[in-house]
Amino acid sequence: MVNITTMMEKARQSNTHFRPHFKTHNSAFIGNWFRKLGIHSITVSSVSMAKFFAAYGWRDITIAFPVNPLELGAISELANELSLNIQGDTADILPVVESALNYPVGFFIEIDTGHHRTGVPWKDLAEIDRMLEYLSTSSRLKFKGFLTHSGHTYHADSQEEILDIYKDTSLKMNYLKDLYKEFWPDIMISVGDTPSCSLAPDFNGVDEIRPGNFVFYDLMQYSLGSCDLGQIAVALACPVVGKNLHRNEVVIYGGAAHFSKDSLYKSNGERLYGYVVRFQEHDWTKPISGAYLANLSQEHGIIKANREFVEEVKVGDVLGILPVHSCLTANLMRGYLTLEGEAINY
Amino acid sequence: MVNITTMMEKARQSNTHFRPHFKTHNSAFIGNWFRKLGIHSITVSSVSMAKFFAAYGWRDITIAFPVNPLELGAISELANELSLNIQGDTADILPVVESALNYPVGFFIEIDTGHHRTGVPWKDLAEIDRMLEYLSTSSRLKFKGFLTHSGHTYHADSQEEILDIYKDTSLKMNYLKDLYKEFWPDIMISVGDTPSCSLAPDFNGVDEIRPGNFVFYDLMQYSLGSCDLGQIAVALACPVVGKNLHRNEVVIYGGAAHFSKDSLYKSNGERLYGYVVRFQEHDWTKPISGAYLANLSQEHGIIKANREFVEEVKVGDVLGILPVHSCLTANLMRGYLTLEGEAINY
Repeated sequence: MVNITTMMEKARQSNTHFRPHFKTHNSAFIGNWFRKLGIHSITVSSVSMAKFFAAYGWRDITIAFPVNPLELGAISELANELSLNIQGDTADILPVVESALNYPVGFFIEIDTGHHRTGVPWKDLAEIDRMLEYLSTSSRLKFKGFLTHSGHTYHADSQEEILDIYKDTSLKMNYLKDLYKEFWPDIMISVGDTPSCSLAPDFNGVDEIRPGNFVFYDLMQYSLGSCDLGQIAVALACPVVGKNLHRNEVVIYGGAAHFSKDSLYKSNGERLYGYVVRFQEHDWTKPISGAYLANLSQEHGIIKANREFVEEVKVGDVLGILPVHSCLTANLMRGYLTLEGEAINY
Repeated sequence: MVNITTMMEKARQSNTHFRPHFKTHNSAFIGNWFRKLGIHSITVSSVSMAKFFAAYGWRDITIAFPVNPLELGAISELANELSLNIQGDTADILPVVESALNYPVGFFIEIDTGHHRTGVPWKDLAEIDRMLEYLSTSSRLKFKGFLTHSGHTYHADSQEEILDIYKDTSLKMNYLKDLYKEFWPDIMISVGDTPSCSLAPDFNGVDEIRPGNFVFYDLMQYSLGSCDLGQIAVALACPVVGKNLHRNEVVIYGGAAHFSKDSLYKSNGERLYGYVVRFQEHDWTKPISGAYLANLSQEHGIIKANREFVEEVKVGDVLGILPVHSCLTANLMRGYLTLEGEAINY
C-alpha cells in the first residue's frame, strides 16, 4: 500500500495524471485498493484484461498494447461501456480500426524513444503526419497524444543510466508535443516504466505516468536500484519437501510453473531465481543470508543455502520466496494472501 | 497421436509398463486419447493434478513429486478413491506419512542416479536400508520399488551422451533391484525422462517408463536430438500486431505470459524462444527459414526474420510458434485447438 501512495503522491505533486498499469497484480481486489485512494483510470495490456476490469466497474481504461485486428469486435463492445483508449504505430491500421468501431475511442500514437520494441520512431515525422492526417478526419478515433514505454531502462547498468533514459524520453516526447500542439492543443504525453517512475525525482513536463510493477516490485527492480528489499511486497509461500545435507540444498514445491523462468545473475555468474525469507506474524524477515533459489524445474525449486539454514529447516516448513519477476509470478499463481491472512482470489 | 503410439509400442515390445506423465498436456481431453489406446495408469507431478485426473476417472496414479506434508490430508482422500503411489527419499518422512493415511498407498523410494535434484543417492545403502526397514513393518505404505528421473539428459551435448546416461541409470537401478529382490520379489524399477525414452532402442531390463513431454515434444527436445521437427505436435497461434521493416521484425501477441521464458541459444549466441510456422488446412508448414522468436515481454513477442517474410506478413495474420518448452507453454495456455478445429478446454 505504501508503494502505491508513494507513487501517487509524487504524481500529484507534479500535477501528472496517474494511470497505474494493472497487469502486474491483475487482481480486482487489489484494484480496489487503488480505487479507495481515488484512482479511477487504469492501464492494461490486453483486451481480455480490459474486459476483466470493466466487469469490476472500471470505466476509464487504456489498452497499452498494439491493436490486434482480430479483437476489434471486443474493443468496439468495450468502447460502448466505458472510456477506452487504444494505441497504434502505423497509419495502415487506422482505416481497419475505424471501420470496425461503433463508438468513439481515444487513440494514442505509440512512440519509440529507444526501446525498439514497438512504436513509431520518434524521428519519423512522415509516419506521424500520416497518422495525424487520418485522425484529423476520423469520427471514431479521437487523438489523445503520444504514448511510450521506455523499457530499455530494464537493461540499464546504473540508477544514473535509468535517469538519463527518463530525461531523454521526456525530451523527445516534449519535442513532439511542441511540434503538434498548435493544431492539437489537448495533446498528452504518457510515459510509464517502473524504473524511471521510481527514480525520477518528479514528473514535471509529463502529462501521465503508467507504471505497474511498483505495486509489488521484485528482485529485478531491486537489482536495477528502483526499490530496496523492504519495498518488495510479494513473496510466494513454498512448502519444503526435501533437503540435502551433502549439497546444502533445500527442495521446495515451487518451480517454473509458479515463478516462470526469469532470472538474475549472481556476481559469480550463477543464476538466481529468488531470495528466501521466513514468514512471521503479519510480516516476513529480511532475506536469509547466503540462501537463494538456484534452480527451477516445472514444480521443484532448489534453494542453495549455508549449512546452518539447511540443518534448521524442516520438511513441511513454508518458506517465502521473493521473486525475480513479480508480474509473471502473479500471472501464474492467480491468487494472493495478505499478511493479515485474507485470501485474494480475484 | 503418432508420438503416443510410437512410445507405447516400444514399451510393449520390451514388456515394460507404460505410465505416461500427464503434466505436459495436463488435459483430460488428451488423457482420453491415451485411454482409448488402453492406457490406464498415469504419472502426475502434484496432488492437485492427481485430483484433476481422478475427477476424470483415472484410477491408477503415481505422484512423482516428493510428498508435501501439508498435503497429506488430500493424499489420504485420494488413496480412498484410487490406486495411488507416492515417493520419498528419506526415512524421516515415513512415520509422518504413515500416521496421516487412512488407506494403503504404494510407495516408491526415489533414487538419485546423477541428476542431483532429489532422491537418495544410489550408493547410500544405509538410507535405503533405513527406509526399507520402516516399510517392511508399515501397514499403509506398500513398498513398490525404485523410481528415478534422469533429468541430466536435458544437459547432454549429444544423442550418444543421452544414451550413455540411460545405460548408466538402468545399470544403477538394476544393481539396487538385484540387491533387494530376495526380500522384495515384486520390486519395480521405474525410469522416465523423454530424451532417454525417445532415443533408447528398447526398454529391456526396465519395469516401467514415465515420459511426458514426448506427447508434444518441443524445440528443446529437437535441440537434444530426441525428436525431429515434424514430431513437434503443438504450436501456439499468435496474431501479428505490428511489423518493423527497418529492423526486419514482426510483433506478435504472444509473450512470456504465454510461452514462459525458457530459451535456447543460436550458434551465434543469440537467444531463441521459438520457431515460426504458417498454419495451413489441418497442418502447419515447416519452420520458416531465417525466422525465429527472438524476444519476449509479458504480452509481446518479437520475431526476427528475413526481409521477404516481414514484407509478406500482414497485421492480423495468425502465425504458429513452435515453443522451446511445451510443458510450460501448455501450463500457461490451458487450452488447445486440434488441427481438425476442435477446441480442447479441459
